[in-house]
Amino acid sequence: QNKLVKIRHNKLFELFVISVIIASALLVGVKTYDVSSTMHKVTVYLDWFITAFFIVEIAIRFSTEDNKKRFFHDFWNLFDTIIVAISLIPIENTDMALIARLVRVFRVLRMISFIPELRILLTSLIKAMPQLGYVMLLMFIIFYIYAAIGSTLFEDINPDLWGDITISLLTLFRVMTFEDWTDVMYETMAVYPMSWIFYLTFIFFTAFAFLNMVIGIVVNVMEE
Amino acid sequence: QNKLVKIRHNKLFELFVISVIIASALLVGVKTYDVSSTMHKVTVYLDWFITAFFIVEIAIRFSTEDNKKRFFHDFWNLFDTIIVAISLIPIENTDMALIARLVRVFRVLRMISFIPELRILLTSLIKAMPQLGYVMLLMFIIFYIYAAIGSTLFEDINPDLWGDITISLLTLFRVMTFEDWTDVMYETMAVYPMSWIFYLTFIFFTAFAFLNMVIGIVVNVMEE
Amino acid sequence: QNKLVKIRHNKLFELFVISVIIASALLVGVKTYDVSSTMHKVTVYLDWFITAFFIVEIAIRFSTEDNKKRFFHDFWNLFDTIIVAISLIPIENTDMALIARLVRVFRVLRMISFIPELRILLTSLIKAMPQLGYVMLLMFIIFYIYAAIGSTLFEDINPDLWGDITISLLTLFRVMTFEDWTDVMYETMAVYPMSWIFYLTFIFFTAFAFLNMVIGIVVNVMEE
Amino acid sequence: QNKLVKIRHNKLFELFVISVIIASALLVGVKTYDVSSTMHKVTVYLDWFITAFFIVEIAIRFSTEDNKKRFFHDFWNLFDTIIVAISLIPIENTDMALIARLVRVFRVLRMISFIPELRILLTSLIKAMPQLGYVMLLMFIIFYIYAAIGSTLFEDINPDLWGDITISLLTLFRVMTFEDWTDVMYETMAVYPMSWIFYLTFIFFTAFAFLNMVIGIVVNVMEE
Ligand code: NA
Ligand code: NA
Repeated sequence: QNKLVKIRHNKLFELFVISVIIASALLVGVKTYDVSSTMHKVTVYLDWFITAFFIVEIAIRFSTEDNKKRFFHDFWNLFDTIIVAISLIPIENTDMALIARLVRVFRVLRMISFIPELRILLTSLIKAMPQLGYVMLLMFIIFYIYAAIGSTLFEDINPDLWGDITISLLTLFRVMTFEDWTDVMYETMAVYPMSWIFYLTFIFFTAFAFLNMVIGIVVNVMEE
Repeated sequence: QNKLVKIRHNKLFELFVISVIIASALLVGVKTYDVSSTMHKVTVYLDWFITAFFIVEIAIRFSTEDNKKRFFHDFWNLFDTIIVAISLIPIENTDMALIARLVRVFRVLRMISFIPELRILLTSLIKAMPQLGYVMLLMFIIFYIYAAIGSTLFEDINPDLWGDITISLLTLFRVMTFEDWTDVMYETMAVYPMSWIFYLTFIFFTAFAFLNMVIGIVVNVMEE
Repeated sequence: QNKLVKIRHNKLFELFVISVIIASALLVGVKTYDVSSTMHKVTVYLDWFITAFFIVEIAIRFSTEDNKKRFFHDFWNLFDTIIVAISLIPIENTDMALIARLVRVFRVLRMISFIPELRILLTSLIKAMPQLGYVMLLMFIIFYIYAAIGSTLFEDINPDLWGDITISLLTLFRVMTFEDWTDVMYETMAVYPMSWIFYLTFIFFTAFAFLNMVIGIVVNVMEE
Repeated sequence: QNKLVKIRHNKLFELFVISVIIASALLVGVKTYDVSSTMHKVTVYLDWFITAFFIVEIAIRFSTEDNKKRFFHDFWNLFDTIIVAISLIPIENTDMALIARLVRVFRVLRMISFIPELRILLTSLIKAMPQLGYVMLLMFIIFYIYAAIGSTLFEDINPDLWGDITISLLTLFRVMTFEDWTDVMYETMAVYPMSWIFYLTFIFFTAFAFLNMVIGIVVNVMEE
């Protein structure tokens, strides 16, 4: 065991771990290109090597942990274990090959768990979330009311955009990002000439709520 | 009356009220889908139940209020009463069915009056409005002058965009959101090659006024 | 003269002045609609009345000023006088009718000179300008270099977008506002597949300079 | 040598240097227009004159420097020397004429090295960069994961947008700038109706990371 502790804190070993993580990320990228069948075989072998290495690395970390119970109480240990465990699920069916590839993409996330600064950054981002909770609820209520009105009034004009409340919510998100929003508006204005009020009040309310959200975060961060 | 006070502050009753509010919100969403006639009947009955329940709930709140006169001085009591009252207006004509549906959408707003945090948030948003007053007036003057110039010079080029001052204001709002603004500009540049000055100065002025509005709010919030 | 001083500070007179300013603004709007010939005659008479009234109002202000020399040292007196003076220039030629209408649009600006809060706001906006000076110069240098490169490399691909440095500057401004910028990029990528570097570095540099401009203003405002 | 020191600090000489820099910038602009052959000859002579003058100016600065070794330790001296040196490379081949023109564009950058305020501004901009490092790495990881997923799932739908991971990264940057992002989404939604989740979560994550980047800079600047 003493030997494992030594390995774990060895600088060279750490360097090798980060190299394997980067290699696994590059491998994910390489597989999106059309590669020769030889190259394809190499990626398969590399995949198995990376999976095996990640298991070994977690095993080392687990066995050198003094308090075994506390190991999975640490979020990042759990995070790494889940990522590795998922890529272990045997997928033999060819239809599942796509899902197998997708699952391996998430191994790139090990980059975050390995670099302490990224871990801190992500933790602070997640901590900022609850502050946004109520502004987001308010924004969702605004979206919901406008989507209900939109799909009630405009359904017959363009069912692809206003067919039901889900599609309407998506259309309103599009309007909020100003993505060809005038095309959406001009279409309904042909039937309801005053419907610009619907869009302008919606843009005003959401922009105002968004602005307050940003200012709220800035003020919260400053107070700390 | 003592019994009513007990009911009003009962945790289970509060939970039931919020459930009915959420149910009324979901109902608004469900009605935007094409539902079977049986389901349609259910929504009608649910609508009546929700209306009845909201009346009862307001009645309880009103009767347990010590000072009856002060009840409607509270903005949120008034707000809830108006929302319920509006959905009580009898609409028998089938043409009016659309309006009846729209009116019930606003019952979703009871979510805001029921959750104290949202009430506080909305109050603080509304309090921030008067600070914006003069910047918004300035921005409106900029818009108005550019719309007047636009509809004077460009009316013959594209009456759909520059026909009169109202349409021109809408077109300028579109330009401010950068929504296919170059299409609008290239069209007028074909006749007046220098008209890019019109658009660029407009974008500069409004962006500058908007930036000052945001900074003004940030500074105001910080001073508190 | 004592009588004139009384008139000038009369609340009713002030109210009348603001009414005439608003009337002149509305008149500018009305003229963008197709109006009957009777209505057209009314607007012509109203125009003359407003011009006459503005002259009288400035004359009163000038004659009640103790130090006549200092009158035009005040920016807003000069501002009002110029606006009125411009609309006095006799334009008899029918070709000039358009320019005459445009000139009268600027009478709306008297709204700013009349409302003290807007005057203060505009003064503080203009004071914030010199702080922006060097960031704007830096941004112009970035624009200029990219426009020179763009019109050198891409001129033959699309002369409408990259014909010379002026057109290229306009195209780059379009790219900065993200207005169909991928259409511009995909077109040049067909010839130079690596030209996405040109657009992405440009967006990165301008966004970064813009962000610094905003932060610079916020910090400057806070320090006061 | 004493004479050179005098020249170097002469106000008139400084004015002349800035004039030549501006002239070289204008010359870059002029060459993007179609000019007569006479004018073209003038630009060639001017180019040579500017190159010669820049060499002389740097030579003066170098010879008046007390500690010759330290001269190139100053970033801006190195910067100016490189810019001048590059435009000295003899390019006789006509195919290279384009590159020769491009190289001369960078002489406009001497504007930055000559104006002290721009030098300070650029230095402070570059100093702000390392603070962005980890947020940018996090953002790149988000981009990379989404690009890998995108090119795995959507490659067959539209290879021009999702062919491999590089193209997918470009498409995702387009989505982040909201440039016709719904066109990209609607296309994949036709095959995978739930793929709006892909786009909305991506927009949410990148907007959130970007917001944190901006707030981070604001807080850092304020603390100084
Ligand atoms: Na856009
Ligand atoms: Na667009």
